Amino acid sequence: MPLTPEQKAEIEAVRATPRPTLRAVSEGMEAHLYLAHEVLDHGFVRVIDYMGDDAAIVQAARVSYGAGTKHVSNDEGLIRYLMRHWHSTPFEMCEVKLHVKLPVFVARQWIRHRTANVNEYSARYSILDREFYIPEPGQLAAQSTVNNQGRGAVLEGAEAARVLELLKSDAGRSYDHYEAMLSQEGQQGLARELARMNLPMNIYTQWYWKTDLHNLFHFLRLRADAHAQYEIRVYADAIARVAKDWVPLAFAAFEDYRMGGATLSAKAIAVLKRRLAGEAVGQEDSGMSKGEWREFTELWG
Amino acid sequence: MPLTPEQKAEIEAVRATPRPTLRAVSEGMEAHLYLAHEVLDHGFVRVIDYMGDDAAIVQAARVSYGAGTKHVSNDEGLIRYLMRHWHSTPFEMCEVKLHVKLPVFVARQWIRHRTANVNEYSARYSILDREFYIPEPGQLAAQSTVNNQGRGAVLEGAEAARVLELLKSDAGRSYDHYEAMLSQEGQQGLARELARMNLPMNIYTQWYWKTDLHNLFHFLRLRADAHAQYEIRVYADAIARVAKDWVPLAFAAFEDYRMGGATLSAKAIAVLKRRLAGEAVGQEDSGMSKGEWREFTELWG
Amino acid sequence: MPLTPEQKAEIEAVRATPRPTLRAVSEGMEAHLYLAHEVLDHGFVRVIDYMGDDAAIVQAARVSYGAGTKHVSNDEGLIRYLMRHWHSTPFEMCEVKLHVKLPVFVARQWIRHRTANVNEYSARYSILDREFYIPEPGQLAAQSTVNNQGRGAVLEGAEAARVLELLKSDAGRSYDHYEAMLSQEGQQGLARELARMNLPMNIYTQWYWKTDLHNLFHFLRLRADAHAQYEIRVYADAIARVAKDWVPLAFAAFEDYRMGGATLSAKAIAVLKRRLAGEAVGQEDSGMSKGEWREFTELWG
Amino acid sequence: MPLTPEQKAEIEAVRATPRPTLRAVSEGMEAHLYLAHEVLDHGFVRVIDYMGDDAAIVQAARVSYGAGTKHVSNDEGLIRYLMRHWHSTPFEMCEVKLHVKLPVFVARQWIRHRTANVNEYSARYSILDREFYIPEPGQLAAQSTVNNQGRGAVLEGAEAARVLELLKSDAGRSYDHYEAMLSQEGQQGLARELARMNLPMNIYTQWYWKTDLHNLFHFLRLRADAHAQYEIRVYADAIARVAKDWVPLAFAAFEDYRMGGATLSAKAIAVLKRRLAGEAVGQEDSGMSKGEWREFTELWG
Repeated sequence: MPLTPEQKAEIEAVRATPRPTLRAVSEGMEAHLYLAHEVLDHGFVRVIDYMGDDAAIVQAARVSYGAGTKHVSNDEGLIRYLMRHWHSTPFEMCEVKLHVKLPVFVARQWIRHRTANVNEYSARYSILDREFYIPEPGQLAAQSTVNNQGRGAVLEGAEAARVLELLKSDAGRSYDHYEAMLSQEGQQGLARELARMNLPMNIYTQWYWKTDLHNLFHFLRLRADAHAQYEIRVYADAIARVAKDWVPLAFAAFEDYRMGGATLSAKAIAVLKRRLAGEAVGQEDSGMSKGEWREFTELWG
Repeated sequence: MPLTPEQKAEIEAVRATPRPTLRAVSEGMEAHLYLAHEVLDHGFVRVIDYMGDDAAIVQAARVSYGAGTKHVSNDEGLIRYLMRHWHSTPFEMCEVKLHVKLPVFVARQWIRHRTANVNEYSARYSILDREFYIPEPGQLAAQSTVNNQGRGAVLEGAEAARVLELLKSDAGRSYDHYEAMLSQEGQQGLARELARMNLPMNIYTQWYWKTDLHNLFHFLRLRADAHAQYEIRVYADAIARVAKDWVPLAFAAFEDYRMGGATLSAKAIAVLKRRLAGEAVGQEDSGMSKGEWREFTELWG
Repeated sequence: MPLTPEQKAEIEAVRATPRPTLRAVSEGMEAHLYLAHEVLDHGFVRVIDYMGDDAAIVQAARVSYGAGTKHVSNDEGLIRYLMRHWHSTPFEMCEVKLHVKLPVFVARQWIRHRTANVNEYSARYSILDREFYIPEPGQLAAQSTVNNQGRGAVLEGAEAARVLELLKSDAGRSYDHYEAMLSQEGQQGLARELARMNLPMNIYTQWYWKTDLHNLFHFLRLRADAHAQYEIRVYADAIARVAKDWVPLAFAAFEDYRMGGATLSAKAIAVLKRRLAGEAVGQEDSGMSKGEWREFTELWG
Repeated sequence: MPLTPEQKAEIEAVRATPRPTLRAVSEGMEAHLYLAHEVLDHGFVRVIDYMGDDAAIVQAARVSYGAGTKHVSNDEGLIRYLMRHWHSTPFEMCEVKLHVKLPVFVARQWIRHRTANVNEYSARYSILDREFYIPEPGQLAAQSTVNNQGRGAVLEGAEAARVLELLKSDAGRSYDHYEAMLSQEGQQGLARELARMNLPMNIYTQWYWKTDLHNLFHFLRLRADAHAQYEIRVYADAIARVAKDWVPLAFAAFEDYRMGGATLSAKAIAVLKRRLAGEAVGQEDSGMSKGEWREFTELWG
């Protein structure tokens, strides 16, 4: 359970006291504010604040394109046009601030998205809690034999049990020793900035993470993708559900053009055109490498 | 007058309809929302949206530093501490979106601040209005004789009149020809993306500009400074007044540590220490160049 | 002619004196160093410095993926794999610094690419030269009747002559007055930072522009595209030719996957799959809007 | 010993074969290329590539300021002027690419500097080596009693021995189990992307890290500072020594204005002025808080 009773009471209190504002309001997002969407065994995603809505995207585009946008009959059409033509700046006019609790090895992937603002809990200043990510049995997968960065079959019986036991006992022992080194009872007590190095990378950390909608979509495209590691994908999925309620029109365009779309190379376009003209084309006369062809046929058969 | 009656009515309408929100609200900023702060002869700054307040800065810092922030007794003290120690990320947790109308030559300086989101009115899509910045007589200054990038004395009588006349007539004629080239009456009409090249750089453009509080302070430090060009400084001054109402504690810290503060070199520190010890130090035994010494003595005498 | 004889002599001198280095060297890029590639009537692009080559991209990828990259048989295959899977960081390991002379209205489009370093000639410090972009007759196009941001047919006889005459005379007169206002003969002389506002946006400026290869490719994808304005596209084309000699493998992958590629929406994929299965699909049963369908059929028929 | 014999041979080979280039060359930096500067017990910093030198900074500034820079008599004076007046863009014209091997907990601090390009070794693709940071006895410090994020006295005898023993045995055991979980002998073998979560944060990772000189200086100012954690400070110190050889003039200016300089608040300036005028000023009539006063008197007495 990721939240303490005190935290839950705090959330209820702040949710009980709406205040008037003249700003753009997204009803869908107000329903999410402060609430914890649970992710993994101890993690969560919470919306702390947001700026803008679908109408704000349209409004910014109309500032840019002036009378040039009048021929687009409605907001949905304009938003789809912007997404299709990679006009990113109107989407940058919306902003979201999240509170995320996540394992350190997930945080290390996440932080590679540089166009964001981050305030992470500092283990130099403060002591981390005894909370570790331990995968569910269904996620304990073997190394993929075809993909260097992927998972294969789920581990079976005895092996799965051994792995779980190792992960739990190592995490527990490392944390015991972390506490022992920090302790000032009968000893000086090691500095926090040093003791933290003994902790494993499945320990949970937390941060405030703030980004704009354009960069959020970029994050979701990479991390809500089937090739992303499961442990970050579940965070991306939780954020995607929130984004859908926040900016439903923009999210629908994102789903159609990015998540559900595909990028074709010049060679792939040529092959499809030949096929559409009735020609049978195989890898050897496609100009593609074997790996490329395999990826191509995954989508097109 | 920078706003049309229709625009004023629109602003009044949107200001008349507050809606409930669960987000952080800055009363000081709500009072500014959508209203036009007039700048120069046709320009303005309007707050379109904002995220966060002083409490949001504190909240983000407490996420980072955990128990490490408890010894700071209050929000003001913590904000001053963050500012003094260059902890920039908590200030990045606040965001503001402005609608600005400004001359192109000012926009060209402004855009050099890269950490911001911009949607500018496009003269490729749409036709610019006939509005030009013409300086007030008190701002028609001669080239500084001591500073390559500064202004000297105000121009006198006949010369000032000549300059004003040239600026006005050239702008008017260029715009007449812009319209004539665009016109499709009795001719094909030149493409807008080409015709715009005939316009002078004192024509007004407009944009939505969105940035976080840390980068806003950086902008203000450089552009609300006495060495900034007057025409951008008046925009920075208008934004500074807004920021003061938005995040009064953070702004007060910014004023004390940045706007009113100074950076000393190691050499300057050494000179001050010798002076504090009663020694008289001149440029020749300061280790500073003449230019450096002149700047040093401007502050310290 | 964009370069003075002094500048040409300087370039020849620096090109005559190679020095030994232990860094990665791209022979193709050495051949371009410092030379001016002429663009438009007075503009140019010059390579001032570069970092890295195709091998540097591969080397960075192998640091990241370790043994995971060994199964890719060669550099070309790995570079294509990286491009196909949007692994941008290895391409960020190459950097280029250009000296560009360009009209102000082109510079204003260009600067919107924020992930770059820029040092622009300052008209606050110095006086701009009397050089303006005047389009060739073949580029004097009418406003497109179907595209708000595009060009249509080339202007005919008398109208073209009128436009050229207006552009030339307005530019010349504005510059005459710029000089007259600056002059200190018999008067104080207006500050440079003010006088510049009288200049039209087809005057030439210049800058050093430095970016990494990933962002350069992004720039080229948008600006070497058929929908980009001609006046920036010719700069992008010149840079593309240089990039091809600098990193031939990466550039070939970029051409195949980005410049010559296409992005399909989920709806477009569904239509193509139905067509491949022998079904005839029209706009009305495609789920696409009319505008979207028009763009779709431009590529696929 | 951070490098294998094969790696050392490779470095010698690449250093033995200089090639001609027309680019700017920094002799001081050529001497560092590829060589490993050892840091901590298994870490290093290696220069892989660089772009520009002191002259490149000057050259970029002269493009910007044109004739406006002529009054500065020499490169050193101009570079000092740029540094003093926060003209950051000329320093952005130099770039450096480093290969760094460092503990994960150091990498997590380092990556917060977002304006850089990074290719990190991926433990999703590949298996990490059995190398952990174990502090030297002289660095095993107690938690500071006055500073939440600092170190106090060095741990004494038995406690120090206990800590070292815990760090070593926990790291060794975690790595043994990492290997055991990955092993495919007699079992399926856990996916690498999962097994890595068992590793402690003092394990070494490595990356290519590329940034420009302006951002490098910012990194050094924060991380080569006495308040930075020792384990990142030693990396910053090693990089500072390299930078000094690369751009000696810029580095000297950086040392004088940034590393050895100080920022004063308006209140601090007022106190110093009163003291210079002979007045005795204490905390209570300074307008500063106690914490602020303590920091003020650390510098000024």
